[in-house]
Amino acid sequence: MTARIREFLDTRRPDGPCLVVDLDVVRDNFLAFRHALPDSRVFYAVKANPAPEVLSLLAELGSNFDCASVAEIEMALAAGADATRISFGNTIKKERDVSRAFHLGVRLFAVDCVAEVEKVARQAPGARVFCRILCDGAGAEWPLSRKFGCEPEMAIDVLETAHRLGLTAYGVSFHVGSQQANTEAWDGALASAANIFRVLGERGIQLKMVNLGGGFPTKYLKDIPAVEAYGRSIDASIRQHFGNRIPETIIEPGRGMVGNAGIIKTEVVLISQKGGADDTRWVFLDIGKFGGLAETMDEAIRYPMVTRRDSDEKTPCILAGPTCDSADVLYEKTPYALPVSLEIGDEILIEGTGAYTTTYSAVAFNGFEPLKAYVI
Amino acid sequence: MTARIREFLDTRRPDGPCLVVDLDVVRDNFLAFRHALPDSRVFYAVKANPAPEVLSLLAELGSNFDCASVAEIEMALAAGADATRISFGNTIKKERDVSRAFHLGVRLFAVDCVAEVEKVARQAPGARVFCRILCDGAGAEWPLSRKFGCEPEMAIDVLETAHRLGLTAYGVSFHVGSQQANTEAWDGALASAANIFRVLGERGIQLKMVNLGGGFPTKYLKDIPAVEAYGRSIDASIRQHFGNRIPETIIEPGRGMVGNAGIIKTEVVLISQKGGADDTRWVFLDIGKFGGLAETMDEAIRYPMVTRRDSDEKTPCILAGPTCDSADVLYEKTPYALPVSLEIGDEILIEGTGAYTTTYSAVAFNGFEPLKAYVI
Repeated sequence: MTARIREFLDTRRPDGPCLVVDLDVVRDNFLAFRHALPDSRVFYAVKANPAPEVLSLLAELGSNFDCASVAEIEMALAAGADATRISFGNTIKKERDVSRAFHLGVRLFAVDCVAEVEKVARQAPGARVFCRILCDGAGAEWPLSRKFGCEPEMAIDVLETAHRLGLTAYGVSFHVGSQQANTEAWDGALASAANIFRVLGERGIQLKMVNLGGGFPTKYLKDIPAVEAYGRSIDASIRQHFGNRIPETIIEPGRGMVGNAGIIKTEVVLISQKGGADDTRWVFLDIGKFGGLAETMDEAIRYPMVTRRDSDEKTPCILAGPTCDSADVLYEKTPYALPVSLEIGDEILIEGTGAYTTTYSAVAFNGFEPLKAYVI
Repeated sequence: MTARIREFLDTRRPDGPCLVVDLDVVRDNFLAFRHALPDSRVFYAVKANPAPEVLSLLAELGSNFDCASVAEIEMALAAGADATRISFGNTIKKERDVSRAFHLGVRLFAVDCVAEVEKVARQAPGARVFCRILCDGAGAEWPLSRKFGCEPEMAIDVLETAHRLGLTAYGVSFHVGSQQANTEAWDGALASAANIFRVLGERGIQLKMVNLGGGFPTKYLKDIPAVEAYGRSIDASIRQHFGNRIPETIIEPGRGMVGNAGIIKTEVVLISQKGGADDTRWVFLDIGKFGGLAETMDEAIRYPMVTRRDSDEKTPCILAGPTCDSADVLYEKTPYALPVSLEIGDEILIEGTGAYTTTYSAVAFNGFEPLKAYVI
């Protein structure tokens, strides 16, 4: 919670659930990344929070942008970013979207298979491509599936094909998994990347860039390492695996850039029990899984919550959203401790909600409007 | 697939993923419910698909409406339903929303605890309330959690409190679980309901109505019983448990009313493999979990899919959506058989998607716009 957000809520008193994002925190995060990884260019992952004010601030600070779609590319351009500062980082693109991005000036594309390389070669001649490789994600709160990336061995073929089709085989990317608490997690993938650089170098193709991806955590309930620790560890791994041929590097923070900049204000709609021997308290909020808290799926992320009664005794509660959907339960397997004195109508502030909330919000599920956001 | 939908797609050729809903099927479903359960009033669960055309058709046919929020109440009113035909069926309501509903003319409210009864008594004096009881949901494809409802024993107190506070203690509701394949599933809850009627009757409170809820299935891959079979089974249970004091009954079909009326048109964006020993084909569509197919969560619902190459040999594929989110995978634990000859750019039609798709769609995740819908 920042003083600016508290003041905004106290003076504006917005009705209904809303996210409030403090741009000062985003600025601090950007500067911290730049300080901790001074040799890496920052490509903000727009999908984490594409609020125009966030994009404009980052464009002004000199950030680059990792975009998942043509719409995100257009948002980054509208915020003042030059197309040369934009990466089309989604490995799953319609060919007509590759073409639209190319015509908007984008020259950097992610791929993870030959079919995608062929689309880029046809629609974005001469562009730079980087190939995403699989990464085991150990240590991540939310390890990624095998959806993105290919085996490192296959990446060699993919990049060689790109080169043969007239594209610039530019580099390798990977993602160590979301909310990655292990600062060493980049090491294995960096070893694979160095090997791809070496093999392709022997074939006359000089890769230039390693995209270190995201995974930088935001603080929820548990403490996390400082961004400097990630910087030191990544730097050491790069030196070890690449020796004196250090590649360009980029990072793609999303959660790490905006997660702790936002607070969701919510209201207790109902507190009830089910009767019989079951005396568990159910606490229902005016926001749930479909209103922006999708990352509570499988209770993956446990957000810190603040009430005005936190000095009172607490008891474990099942926490749920307001919709008529039985899946709209936030914490049940591991109940959430809330004050016994909590009352219907009380405000609860959910911290660390600046990333992956507004955009996950359903368009109108149960008639509830999507999560409102105020960027201050 | 209906001929009208096929013709619409062939002539209009809409770009991007979209849902097409055939109103003729909705009409048939409504008439089938009325025929199978002639003594029950139909309250369409608006949340399943609140398209204005669907609501207008159902209002015209004489349907009533089960609404989850004030916004849904306003949609039902705008479609031509009188407020006396509307139930505020969400057990989790802000007190100011109870008041708004009351001022819009709504006089029927769901409750499942004393705190909710107190809100209704304060804001909707004299209104009818029904108390939802817990139901084990055995036999449902998607059993409901304990989120809604209370133990039958507690429902007696809840309804007695309602009576004491000047409300009309009107009845009992329950929900046997979504996509319920067991036509006998209503029996246990009807026995509980009859007992609540009896106990309260002895205390001078005459309940009148049993809300049989939804749960009526739509056909996905497996065959389902005809709606007549549900009608016969429910009728037999009511006669058995209520004897010659048959209550009014209402049903709240949502999925059963619109599920099979809709088809989602999607496009294959990419087909790839990961390399190494893993030769599984990944098929990426332009719609996924965040674009309307949220009910594939935990692979709960397996939609039938139609391609133009279905006579060709098929192979199990992992099916995923287009976003940069590793959780956006539709079928992976149990891969989905698709033609080996399937190509990038091919159309895939996803059947049985008329319910719980458009409204679950994220507002702009990864910059992708929400699912478009055409109601014909």
